[in-house]
Amino acid sequence: MSGNPQYTLAELAERFGLEAHGDAGTIVDGVGTLASATSTQLTFLSNSKYASQLADSQAGIVIVGAADVASRKGAALVAADPYVAYAKIAALFEHVAAAPRGIHASAVVAASARISPTASIGPCCVVEDGAVIEDGAVLGPHCTIGPGCVVGAHSRLVARVTLVIRVTLGQRVLVHPGAVIGSDGFGLAFDRDHWVKLPQLGGVRIGDDCEIGANTTIDRGALDDTVLEEDVRLDNQIQIAHNVHIGAHTAMAGCSAVAGSAKIGRYCLIGGNAGILGHLEVADRVTITAKSLVTSSIREPGEYSSGTPLQENRQWRRNAARMKHLDEYARRLAALEKDRGND
Amino acid sequence: MSGNPQYTLAELAERFGLEAHGDAGTIVDGVGTLASATSTQLTFLSNSKYASQLADSQAGIVIVGAADVASRKGAALVAADPYVAYAKIAALFEHVAAAPRGIHASAVVAASARISPTASIGPCCVVEDGAVIEDGAVLGPHCTIGPGCVVGAHSRLVARVTLVIRVTLGQRVLVHPGAVIGSDGFGLAFDRDHWVKLPQLGGVRIGDDCEIGANTTIDRGALDDTVLEEDVRLDNQIQIAHNVHIGAHTAMAGCSAVAGSAKIGRYCLIGGNAGILGHLEVADRVTITAKSLVTSSIREPGEYSSGTPLQENRQWRRNAARMKHLDEYARRLAALEKDRGND
Amino acid sequence: MSGNPQYTLAELAERFGLEAHGDAGTIVDGVGTLASATSTQLTFLSNSKYASQLADSQAGIVIVGAADVASRKGAALVAADPYVAYAKIAALFEHVAAAPRGIHASAVVAASARISPTASIGPCCVVEDGAVIEDGAVLGPHCTIGPGCVVGAHSRLVARVTLVIRVTLGQRVLVHPGAVIGSDGFGLAFDRDHWVKLPQLGGVRIGDDCEIGANTTIDRGALDDTVLEEDVRLDNQIQIAHNVHIGAHTAMAGCSAVAGSAKIGRYCLIGGNAGILGHLEVADRVTITAKSLVTSSIREPGEYSSGTPLQENRQWRRNAARMKHLDEYARRLAALEKDRGND
Repeated sequence: MSGNPQYTLAELAERFGLEAHGDAGTIVDGVGTLASATSTQLTFLSNSKYASQLADSQAGIVIVGAADVASRKGAALVAADPYVAYAKIAALFEHVAAAPRGIHASAVVAASARISPTASIGPCCVVEDGAVIEDGAVLGPHCTIGPGCVVGAHSRLVARVTLVIRVTLGQRVLVHPGAVIGSDGFGLAFDRDHWVKLPQLGGVRIGDDCEIGANTTIDRGALDDTVLEEDVRLDNQIQIAHNVHIGAHTAMAGCSAVAGSAKIGRYCLIGGNAGILGHLEVADRVTITAKSLVTSSIREPGEYSSGTPLQENRQWRRNAARMKHLDEYARRLAALEKDRGND
Repeated sequence: MSGNPQYTLAELAERFGLEAHGDAGTIVDGVGTLASATSTQLTFLSNSKYASQLADSQAGIVIVGAADVASRKGAALVAADPYVAYAKIAALFEHVAAAPRGIHASAVVAASARISPTASIGPCCVVEDGAVIEDGAVLGPHCTIGPGCVVGAHSRLVARVTLVIRVTLGQRVLVHPGAVIGSDGFGLAFDRDHWVKLPQLGGVRIGDDCEIGANTTIDRGALDDTVLEEDVRLDNQIQIAHNVHIGAHTAMAGCSAVAGSAKIGRYCLIGGNAGILGHLEVADRVTITAKSLVTSSIREPGEYSSGTPLQENRQWRRNAARMKHLDEYARRLAALEKDRGND
Repeated sequence: MSGNPQYTLAELAERFGLEAHGDAGTIVDGVGTLASATSTQLTFLSNSKYASQLADSQAGIVIVGAADVASRKGAALVAADPYVAYAKIAALFEHVAAAPRGIHASAVVAASARISPTASIGPCCVVEDGAVIEDGAVLGPHCTIGPGCVVGAHSRLVARVTLVIRVTLGQRVLVHPGAVIGSDGFGLAFDRDHWVKLPQLGGVRIGDDCEIGANTTIDRGALDDTVLEEDVRLDNQIQIAHNVHIGAHTAMAGCSAVAGSAKIGRYCLIGGNAGILGHLEVADRVTITAKSLVTSSIREPGEYSSGTPLQENRQWRRNAARMKHLDEYARRLAALEKDRGND
């Protein structure tokens, strides 16, 4: 056995308010996929595409929707949204070693910083003047918390996170390694023959329950702050420029980017490597598909895309060459139509 | 009051060589936007789009162009380029805590490194054999300066910057957290069934007054050096491959990338997530719009683009499917025209 | 002279199994380009595009293919693949300072970590509980090796590399600064009005002889592992999502990205900033050109592309506007053809 915690079907049903089917004493001590889960593991079926695997699954417990429970022979939990229920139950089986309270001997902490006694400051961290680390917050190795920055209660900076200056993280914010928050916005004025830098005098405010991916960068504002409202979820290598405002519950996939002063709504889904130009607005509940570029404001919820489909290179070359003449083709088409109409 | 430094209209006019209008004793102690600046703050109007806000602005001082000064009731400074003037004046209100001279106790500095007595080496920095840190240079926390690398006078590495090897930074270079300069170029030779790595024997030379964004990467050359001339401005998460040469005063927006041995001219503007393929040349004063891909040399100044416009996904799908047949459509169009001509 | 090691033509021919032409005693102590190499440097000619430079090259030794040797007056080595032979010989001239065995005084190493006596743990490294560092492995400054992670024999983490948790590196793996391996996959379930995080319970397995570029991120799997087979070569700023599987000998250029659970074949070449969506398969020996987006599985080897060609912006605008109406144009074209057929 794995040494993991163990739960019975009855316990899980009770704890998560789900309906149980089958042997109430069925025990699980871990999770797996529908195809690979063993008789002591729990899994789920949320996508009807995989329904055919349900009958064959060896899993001890399967979380299913009401429509699928009849197809499950063994123990099952019925959930309105099996994926959500799975996410919550699976968290029981995640071991995160408790971070030791207090400040590691190798950390460098300014005398004026305010560190909660229940916070954990890891090896080689640097906490600068006036920074505040609230209750239960955890800084993994190699974090730098710049002057006056605030890490809210129960937030966790996994490792090597840098908060530069005027950055405030809310509660339960999770930041992955390599993220840089509060770096200078890219503000330049062109003075005849060279660049003059604009001082970046604003900060960054990150709401409660946000997640910031590995090597993601969030610049601080030029005058006002860059803002992420609560529960914004950023994947890895995302770039958020100065004075961007992202509404609550918006999720952005890896390598997407938002240029300066853009305002993204709530509950948006931004696909991988999508880009949003500066100084525009995106309404609530907008989905942008992967690699699309938003060049003007989007006022209506919905799904938006740009780009061209993938083709075998030889065919693509022929078609791409034609794209350079589309305007001409459209004119020629119209001329033919007019000509035809004159017959 | 804010405890900031205070300046009168007369002082600013004198110091920056600008023409003053209104009460010479008007005092400002900070900056703000045209809409939000208070009676003790300075702001600017450079874009005629916002001219309507000028009459209502509560700002203590507004920097305007000559054409707009008549519309301003309160104190004003007249500048040929209000944005440039604002950039310079705003810098007065930026507090950058003076970095303490000397080497922090937690830093690890090789005996053979040469550190100016006026330089500042921050907590947990590592300075390796033969590295040189010149007068007034500042290394924030967690920087690594590899063997023989040089940080020029008054350059500032904000935090967690890594110079790997054979990297020379000029004077007043500003590097943001997470940047990696001098990592191996991506050079591989394919030997029948596996890759053989090419040693990367060159270095990186960064000119005076350059700025390098957060998590930007600049590889060192294979034989010769990767070069940024003076006053090159790189935003966050930019990738510069080995042996790239970027001309003076060129600015690149976030997530753009240049492949190996490309040569970019002076005074170019490269948009966000734009890409430039390897072994090609881009002339001076070329602008590339966001997300465009440069696949061959550009010999003339001007603005260049690729990509398709964003559409509602359902419409986009219909159009994108047609792009796969453009060549055929063009042929059919020509056939119709020919046919018509034969009537 | 450079103080570099010196080799005669005869020594190199013998050591690398190449045919020598010219004075067997010709000595080289370095490498250069065909155009710049001096009489004590070695270079190569692999691309017939540069054949005209061969006669003028001042290089002490040139590696050439059999077809070009007659055009070379001085000393030459004949190789089946001159570029591969050059890669191997050039490695003789790379100085990598030997890393000192043992643990730097500033490193923080858990008592339960297992460090080979022949490994080198650099300044400010953090090695956590149960981590294993095998023979001859080198950790440069500022690396963090998370709980239970394994760094295989003779692997080298140049500097500031973070292995988060459940990460295993094979032998001779080379990881560049800023890389993050084993961070949380981006797994979220939407629970009516907010996100619920899915615990990421898998790990990352990196095969022998892989190379991971600067600031590249590789997330750990949700249940199973994220896998790179042997000799996979990743450039800088690449994003590999959870549960991705990359076949042996595949090389990916800078800023490319692979979304969750995609399976990439062996010997693939992925161009710069190309993207591959999740849950799809790419066959062996597929080439994807720069900035292309793969949105469905690719079953056949070959070269694939998407995107549009670069144009002068004014022309591009006209054509791009037409792309929004392609479906309509295609219908109108068909209508004209039909109409014509009815004549």
